[in-house]
Amino acid sequence: MRSFFLSAATALALFAGNGGAAAPVTPASVLAEAPASAWVAPAPDDLLVMDLAGGKRVVIALAPDFAPVHVASIRTLARAHWYDGLWIERVQDNYVVQWGDPTEKKPLPAGVPADPPAEYERSAAGLALTEHPYRDTFADRTGFVSGWPVAEDGGQAWLTHCYGMVGVGRGNAPSTGSGAELYAIIGHAPRALDRNIALVGRVLTGIEGMTALPRGSEAMGFYKTEGERLPILSARLASDLPEAQRPHVRVLDTASPAFAAWVKVRANRKDDFYVRPAGAIDLCSVMPPVKEGD
Amino acid sequence: MRSFFLSAATALALFAGNGGAAAPVTPASVLAEAPASAWVAPAPDDLLVMDLAGGKRVVIALAPDFAPVHVASIRTLARAHWYDGLWIERVQDNYVVQWGDPTEKKPLPAGVPADPPAEYERSAAGLALTEHPYRDTFADRTGFVSGWPVAEDGGQAWLTHCYGMVGVGRGNAPSTGSGAELYAIIGHAPRALDRNIALVGRVLTGIEGMTALPRGSEAMGFYKTEGERLPILSARLASDLPEAQRPHVRVLDTASPAFAAWVKVRANRKDDFYVRPAGAIDLCSVMPPVKEGD
Repeated sequence: MRSFFLSAATALALFAGNGGAAAPVTPASVLAEAPASAWVAPAPDDLLVMDLAGGKRVVIALAPDFAPVHVASIRTLARAHWYDGLWIERVQDNYVVQWGDPTEKKPLPAGVPADPPAEYERSAAGLALTEHPYRDTFADRTGFVSGWPVAEDGGQAWLTHCYGMVGVGRGNAPSTGSGAELYAIIGHAPRALDRNIALVGRVLTGIEGMTALPRGSEAMGFYKTEGERLPILSARLASDLPEAQRPHVRVLDTASPAFAAWVKVRANRKDDFYVRPAGAIDLCSVMPPVKEGD
Repeated sequence: MRSFFLSAATALALFAGNGGAAAPVTPASVLAEAPASAWVAPAPDDLLVMDLAGGKRVVIALAPDFAPVHVASIRTLARAHWYDGLWIERVQDNYVVQWGDPTEKKPLPAGVPADPPAEYERSAAGLALTEHPYRDTFADRTGFVSGWPVAEDGGQAWLTHCYGMVGVGRGNAPSTGSGAELYAIIGHAPRALDRNIALVGRVLTGIEGMTALPRGSEAMGFYKTEGERLPILSARLASDLPEAQRPHVRVLDTASPAFAAWVKVRANRKDDFYVRPAGAIDLCSVMPPVKEGD
């Protein structure tokens, strides 16, 4: 099989039979050697579990430290089973998947403000940023805080629109979005959206259940007919699911030496495939690895 | 409809009925005002037209100025109808779609070298780079040359792995890839691949015929069974198609004032949706716009 990219697992297997030569350090070998303590399970209250028609499950980590009011609304909506029976209604290539209530007519439960505070950025004070060591096009300082990709400038900090990040749909400013519509980034990071929308989370697992959907033929990738929409069967906080139905996911601790080593090797690939290590890697190319299972 | 992003078309329509207020400059308004002379039709010899099962057509522009031997091989393969009956065999989420001959057993036509020169970079001499005005994580100088995203360093220049770019699959170095397998980038730009593989082109239209395919369940996103593969019905140079079947596509001239204006407004969005223009935009977020039709 002529692949343009040997998987790290294959590379390791090949090297294991390679007359005792030392296996090269690869992204996969760094992860395999990371101690169990470097893998952090998000709190069950911070996991939104969406079951879609067709047996697809999408698990989203929520970011209450960055958008507390919006995250509280999403928790309330999930606990009210408010998303159940709604749809994925928009798939725009190289941009976003969007889901929720396209009619905007479904009443919001008590305690969910229609226009919460913007929460597009917050004070950087109190955030322990693990700085990303390579320059960024958009901000002078970037890095990760507890698994979240963050940019900083002038004492303010904000989440960045990397692949898989989840935000709150809104109309034109001053609308800020209730949480009735959410979107996930499914293409090259549209960082110009940073600080213009409330980012509230990240798809940890199951994004292929959304990215492989047909693109919508209407403007901005909305589906033309109701029949094209993909139903959301249920959306629950993991804390509201029976133990047996909860997802078991962990995220590599971005303050750990293992994460730093992984970023370094991603920027400096020296396994057999590569002829010229890049010497750098951009923030959105090193979204923290996710591990499923126990 | 509560959309998180008003389409420029919608915005213009709204402004048209807005009591005579001046319409804001948007990416779409810049493109609408670009003169016809700013839209360049690629030469028919530089367009590879792939018709896939299910009525999907993918049109790829080839880049002979950057990978002349590989492009010559692809032209020979297309003229020999060599790709016909092969498959899309790999779809890896946030990474690549790959197609061709996964068995590596189909004999190559005469004149197609199994391991051509690497062509991962070339001399920057003679290339008229329109410099991208914002900093890049990977290279000190980037920009566009005749519609192609390019990075430069130390007198060398190379194409960059942006969304939609097409490259030649290869095994471990020193393999360089014959052209029997090609891939397209379908996720966040994996720029660490730059200068490690021969990039040969860009998908101009129809990428959603590949990006919306199911992800493969084997390692690296290969399909597990032959039945999952999507057949390539035919792959032809536009110059070998009857006039009525040729695609009509044009790319915005990256040396034109219209392109510079479009990049500037992409970096500084001021239409009603945006509350804070980014002030910058990365190279892979401004891949040259493509227009279909006459």
